[in-house]
Amino acid sequence: MLFFTQCFGAVLDLIHLRFQHYKAKRVFSAAGQLVCVVNPTHSLKYAPTRCTAAQTSVEQGVLPPCHHHEAVHDPQLVPCTCPLFSCPWEGHLEVVVSHLRQTHRINILQGAEIVFLATDMHLPAPTDWIIMHSCLGHQFLLVLRKQEKYEGHPQFFATMMLIGTPTQADNFTYRLELNRNQRRLKWEATPRSVLECVDSVISDGDCLVLNTSLAQLFSDNGSLAIGIAITTSKVHNAEAEM
Amino acid sequence: MLFFTQCFGAVLDLIHLRFQHYKAKRVFSAAGQLVCVVNPTHSLKYAPTRCTAAQTSVEQGVLPPCHHHEAVHDPQLVPCTCPLFSCPWEGHLEVVVSHLRQTHRINILQGAEIVFLATDMHLPAPTDWIIMHSCLGHQFLLVLRKQEKYEGHPQFFATMMLIGTPTQADNFTYRLELNRNQRRLKWEATPRSVLECVDSVISDGDCLVLNTSLAQLFSDNGSLAIGIAITTSKVHNAEAEM
Repeated sequence: MLFFTQCFGAVLDLIHLRFQHYKAKRVFSAAGQLVCVVNPTHSLKYAPTRCTAAQTSVEQGVLPPCHHHEAVHDPQLVPCTCPLFSCPWEGHLEVVVSHLRQTHRINILQGAEIVFLATDMHLPAPTDWIIMHSCLGHQFLLVLRKQEKYEGHPQFFATMMLIGTPTQADNFTYRLELNRNQRRLKWEATPRSVLECVDSVISDGDCLVLNTSLAQLFSDNGSLAIGIAITTSKVHNAEAEM
Repeated sequence: MLFFTQCFGAVLDLIHLRFQHYKAKRVFSAAGQLVCVVNPTHSLKYAPTRCTAAQTSVEQGVLPPCHHHEAVHDPQLVPCTCPLFSCPWEGHLEVVVSHLRQTHRINILQGAEIVFLATDMHLPAPTDWIIMHSCLGHQFLLVLRKQEKYEGHPQFFATMMLIGTPTQADNFTYRLELNRNQRRLKWEATPRSVLECVDSVISDGDCLVLNTSLAQLFSDNGSLAIGIAITTSKVHNAEAEM
């Protein structure tokens, strides 16, 4: 009987997951966008320092600085850009993608427009949802982070970074879109380069920021669907005129 | 000499204001939108209670409830909907607009698309920027509020409310748009009715929310330009299908 109950539970879970996936697809995919279910990872990057110096700086609303290596001897080598782990790897920019894929098991998706379905939004901060997105001949890193900038008040920060140089990044525009319950929130910006630090982008707040109540409004059963589109950037017309 | 210096200062101020107005117009008004400069008002609504009970509730992240009258005898009468002042007035919904205009001196603007240029964003919380917007045969109240939900961390909240019933409000969609520095943030939602309380919309966070760093990125010389558009709502296609 217990076996039967457990099996039935597992089947229900599968049906629920399938249904959620289907719903996200319906919301975003008139043009048949790819929906990718992204599971959370508890960020381990600052674990060793979290109890001491980092704690103080988080209380002051300041994030600990990026953990880069003390000396990069070859200027063409870049450190590992994985936002999750403090990793001693360094290598050429061209092989960052394969390092992230193989060592940190970050998935990569193809397509101009995809839907990023982040599950388990209720998990406590700090938590990251990460994926790579291959598009227009380049690879991008999408990071959704749950973090407590103000103690006891977790917020969600989403940004997209080009795995390339800042000059290459200037050629693109990325759009993140939330759409649910007759509400729609869109963020459009030029991606930063992964050579800049994802932590500083988030601590500067120069990204899509959601407080918990907005995240709940846009979530469905604890999952948040973010529509992602990348285009080659035309400088915004109005600004170009100025 | 002093007189000359002061006159020169005043002329410079005028030129600066004109230039700001012109810039906001350029950013938003390819189609000749109306730009309205909105000055801040320090919110006096909760002034008497702010030092005692309200202080406690703000620290807990809860706003004091709406100050409605203890007994409205005629069910067709509504209390004053001005978000700034606790006002004993009550009247029919049809005369709320003229009350807000005459008694609380809230400006009203015509046009399907306008630009709301909020000045002096640096002023301390609580501060409100308010205007009425007449469009599609109805009047809307736009409220931008600077408020400290978390002590020491002011945020900006922007929402649009219909001066009408909730059923009437369901027929519209409003859009608020920020556009500067190659970043664009858009919020679309169904307006709430002014019969619901603006304070609860803001404390629920069901509106456009900006933290200080994002507000600075979108501001120009301490002024924030918000593009506003109202349309009759087509239920978002994708959701309607579900």
